[in-house]
Amino acid sequence: MARTQRVVPREADVSNLEAVATRLRRKVIDMTTEAGSGHPTSCLSCADLVAALFFSEMRWDPSAPDAVDTDTFVLSKGHAAPILWAVLSEAGVAMEPLSSLRRFGSTLEGHPTPSSPWVKVSTGSLGQGLPVANGIALANRMDRIDADVFCLLGDGECAEGAVWEAAQFASANGLSSVVAIVDVNGLGQTGSTAYGRDTGVFARRFEAFGWSAIEIDGHDMHAIRDALFRARSERPAAILARTVKGKGVSFLEDALDMHGKPLDAGQREKALEELGDPVTRVVVMSHRVGGGRVPASSNPPPIEISYEPDAAVATRAAFGTALAKLGTVMPDLVVIDGDVGNSTGTLVFAKDHAERFVQAYIAEQNMAGVAMGLAACGKRPVVASFAAFLTRAADFIRMASHSQLPHLVFCGSHVGVSIGEDGPSQMGLEDLSLFRALGHSTVLYPADAVGAERLTEQAVLTPGIVYLRTSRPKTPVLYPNDAEFPVGGSKTLRTSYGDAFTIVAAGITVFEALAAHDQLKERGIATRVIDAYSVKPLDGVTLAKAAAETRGIVVVEDHWIDGGLGDAVAAELAQTGYAVPVRRLAIIRQPQSGDPRALIENLGISTADIVREITRMSGEPNL
Amino acid sequence: MARTQRVVPREADVSNLEAVATRLRRKVIDMTTEAGSGHPTSCLSCADLVAALFFSEMRWDPSAPDAVDTDTFVLSKGHAAPILWAVLSEAGVAMEPLSSLRRFGSTLEGHPTPSSPWVKVSTGSLGQGLPVANGIALANRMDRIDADVFCLLGDGECAEGAVWEAAQFASANGLSSVVAIVDVNGLGQTGSTAYGRDTGVFARRFEAFGWSAIEIDGHDMHAIRDALFRARSERPAAILARTVKGKGVSFLEDALDMHGKPLDAGQREKALEELGDPVTRVVVMSHRVGGGRVPASSNPPPIEISYEPDAAVATRAAFGTALAKLGTVMPDLVVIDGDVGNSTGTLVFAKDHAERFVQAYIAEQNMAGVAMGLAACGKRPVVASFAAFLTRAADFIRMASHSQLPHLVFCGSHVGVSIGEDGPSQMGLEDLSLFRALGHSTVLYPADAVGAERLTEQAVLTPGIVYLRTSRPKTPVLYPNDAEFPVGGSKTLRTSYGDAFTIVAAGITVFEALAAHDQLKERGIATRVIDAYSVKPLDGVTLAKAAAETRGIVVVEDHWIDGGLGDAVAAELAQTGYAVPVRRLAIIRQPQSGDPRALIENLGISTADIVREITRMSGEPNL
Repeated sequence: MARTQRVVPREADVSNLEAVATRLRRKVIDMTTEAGSGHPTSCLSCADLVAALFFSEMRWDPSAPDAVDTDTFVLSKGHAAPILWAVLSEAGVAMEPLSSLRRFGSTLEGHPTPSSPWVKVSTGSLGQGLPVANGIALANRMDRIDADVFCLLGDGECAEGAVWEAAQFASANGLSSVVAIVDVNGLGQTGSTAYGRDTGVFARRFEAFGWSAIEIDGHDMHAIRDALFRARSERPAAILARTVKGKGVSFLEDALDMHGKPLDAGQREKALEELGDPVTRVVVMSHRVGGGRVPASSNPPPIEISYEPDAAVATRAAFGTALAKLGTVMPDLVVIDGDVGNSTGTLVFAKDHAERFVQAYIAEQNMAGVAMGLAACGKRPVVASFAAFLTRAADFIRMASHSQLPHLVFCGSHVGVSIGEDGPSQMGLEDLSLFRALGHSTVLYPADAVGAERLTEQAVLTPGIVYLRTSRPKTPVLYPNDAEFPVGGSKTLRTSYGDAFTIVAAGITVFEALAAHDQLKERGIATRVIDAYSVKPLDGVTLAKAAAETRGIVVVEDHWIDGGLGDAVAAELAQTGYAVPVRRLAIIRQPQSGDPRALIENLGISTADIVREITRMSGEPNL
Repeated sequence: MARTQRVVPREADVSNLEAVATRLRRKVIDMTTEAGSGHPTSCLSCADLVAALFFSEMRWDPSAPDAVDTDTFVLSKGHAAPILWAVLSEAGVAMEPLSSLRRFGSTLEGHPTPSSPWVKVSTGSLGQGLPVANGIALANRMDRIDADVFCLLGDGECAEGAVWEAAQFASANGLSSVVAIVDVNGLGQTGSTAYGRDTGVFARRFEAFGWSAIEIDGHDMHAIRDALFRARSERPAAILARTVKGKGVSFLEDALDMHGKPLDAGQREKALEELGDPVTRVVVMSHRVGGGRVPASSNPPPIEISYEPDAAVATRAAFGTALAKLGTVMPDLVVIDGDVGNSTGTLVFAKDHAERFVQAYIAEQNMAGVAMGLAACGKRPVVASFAAFLTRAADFIRMASHSQLPHLVFCGSHVGVSIGEDGPSQMGLEDLSLFRALGHSTVLYPADAVGAERLTEQAVLTPGIVYLRTSRPKTPVLYPNDAEFPVGGSKTLRTSYGDAFTIVAAGITVFEALAAHDQLKERGIATRVIDAYSVKPLDGVTLAKAAAETRGIVVVEDHWIDGGLGDAVAAELAQTGYAVPVRRLAIIRQPQSGDPRALIENLGISTADIVREITRMSGEPNL
């Protein structure tokens, strides 16, 4: 793949870079001994690579962590965090003292997190760096910023499939700014990796995935410099560096049982003595490549919604419709889909905004990682797939939640048993639980097309990680086109003086609840019906009112019984302690293929089930 | 890699196999038209491959779905389920009529599930078949059953990283019984795949991952037969078959927009006419390879536990100790770890039972898939990693829950903020939520070493998916060596007449609760302390008693606030509706690196936080 001519500010000479590497090794040993934990040997193997990158190859500015027009470094082998802190320190970056490593309150965490301004995305769950690097490279390409992205991986982590999802994505999309550097030290945590220091194995794999591969001795500074030079014109490029874990300290080199162990004071002295204390005459000259980001969206005007009152529209379709409208007014909106765009609804966006639609194919981990990289660069990514398949990216979603990203929306379609015939493998039944559990997340679940459009709008405007849950079947339009759906709100659809019970529903069960209301009314039982479209945060005020004013609450949802809306309502109301029971109707038996109606009715979340439960409750003496 | 000589019962001739393939295509079209949904074109592309496999290559017995000494077929491209039902029907298997495809109650589901006895593990989430095939192959090798495992994949799904995790595992472990067959039809759901029908791309990848690769025309029955023959001596082998989606029906061949769409009645007639209705003179001769499984463990006697009362032992270490003991008395116990055995505790088992320890390296998806395959073959697999990294396999765990496996244990170590300095990337904070949400799961969470050993024992004896949560720090031994820990139970550690409040804890927070009890006692507030070691199922009776007898409940846990023990307790008590409040103390702010004590105290789950919360509650007028 072609690449642009690279202007390097000034190339440090080899002897100085070697001295820098030694100084980094000293710092790593000092820091980790001081901290009493950490992974010094995993840092020593890559010290030469990191010295060359930061002091000779990368175009960056030690005074400007927020510069957008510089090369990016992604430390995929996150346990080597001390080498990153060491090189930043050596480059004169203003930061906390290295002795604060791993201390509470320090930004020099055990694995990199964005509490340091030099870290775009948290790493430390191996195999995630390259997908993130892809996302950063993609954001740069969209904004015409001609910067490179260097990703440092361990050899052990190349067993992670996510690395190969990312490798395919980079070559298939011609991401010529991505360079992977693999620190092949041959040792994992418990012993040798599968291939020792056989860089050829990794070279063949990267080549088979469409990359250039360059094998070198990772402690030969000439070779490192040559490889980085070669990698400028052969992209995406992977540099496979044979290294020695613990390099530079005799009793650490290739030592088993030293993974993740700091030295004691005596070992530290001995190590520092062996390393020596060279003086360097090299500084990092700051360099920018120029260019800037497409401005972030200012708050756009509300989208125009126009459904006929009698229409039946799937929420997944309405999501796509809204996305396409939002794309027109939000230049930073980027949509990523895993080859199911005609099912999730994103193909509508793809048609109107092809330049901001990313086809991630069937590789959900890389898809999420790309979104994390995009989000870290100020884009507003919307990731869509079947809700069931978003679970494939659960660890990425977890790490995204630790990455304090400004905006990142996931939309999961085809939720619950209401998908019908395709069967359990395609049913999102754990997705509310997955996204609710995250520390700082918003979970939205529309019942009709108007709600779906408005909540799509809310989703892209709400900070942090937002999950939007859409359904496969068409549902009747329930709300007027100008209805508002604030995050944290709910819609009370039926209520009257003297409501005896409350039905809380969301998505397709709202319609079951409405039908149950009518049937119960005929039996003389008045019920309140609440559409809890904002699963997190919940509308606690409305729920508390219902708990105070009615004799019992039934929560009905198309999800496994644990971890979803029922838990959320129970936990919300339990805080204060209401004497009314909260009963959960949800999936408790193994689903199977079948007509959606048959599944809803046989698996316990139908109108009849609600009617039965409330009729039973109305006969309980204590209520 | 060497392989054994294969005896094939009788090889059908090519013209008969071609006729079988045509008959399969007819059946697929009939079934899916009748069902009104499904993926006929995805079946038509692999009809020739499937005909050759079942009618010529595989050693199996159409009358014995439960035979353990036959070759296994894994349909990784699960949306092609109708081709599997068609070939079973064509082979004369006793089964429901093909017209019941996708109907409620039929075992002929939209994607394969073990509701059919011919399916070992549910498929339909792409990329999972090959890891499962590895597990089946491993089980066969352990039991010296010389059978092969054929896994049929789509080309689109080869973008999934799990495929490459599995490819590495198979070659690194010399699994010479595994054959992957990739149906390279070049079309995904929304359009072309990344590489069209370029089988060379996939061949180079499999070769780089240590496999033999054989490229063929997937509609040339001679070539298919030759490839299967070649694959007998070159293992693991991947057959890359160039095919045409919709093959055999002119208006379906390579048609865009026909993915996942059935034909209407008119199209069906036309298709059947084009295909013709050949007669075949071939039957499947049943064939067994001989051998049987190592007998399943009968209930072993309770393990001997011996801790000193003053000892401090991490639950993760006790888990390893118990595993090693159980391995001695349970011949079907197999332990799989992702290169963190010295952290999770499994290295103790590995030392004593090397032949039943599987090193899965850093590839958690394949690790889980291998375990699913092992479990489907009657093994009792225990999968161990950091709890955080089990989220990497969330989609596999989801599918495992749909696979009705007899026994499958996951152990997640290093949970919560109490891991300390390593920081958030290594903290399991979503794991209770992940495993609670599954439809049929058991979740256990010991506080001390005795509990950890007993619950490890319970875990391997309990049917279905069991999650065991262990902690990094050493904790004091709390229980006598003969204490019992039944699933669904709890331990009331402190109680007295007149308890005002209840503290429900688990794992490390049990010790915070005990200290809080003492401090509150000094303030004149009597508290009950419950160790809720069985998170699912909960001990509802004990909790209800506490709700009835005390004025409020505080649940404290080292987990994000949503989806964990707090939700479980709230939902349990809300069923009946107690007037006492249930307050959740859990992680609500972004964790970071730091001393475990600093994290526990700064993030709101310490003794002081419990004392503060209960003191506040004791001052609330309504309680």
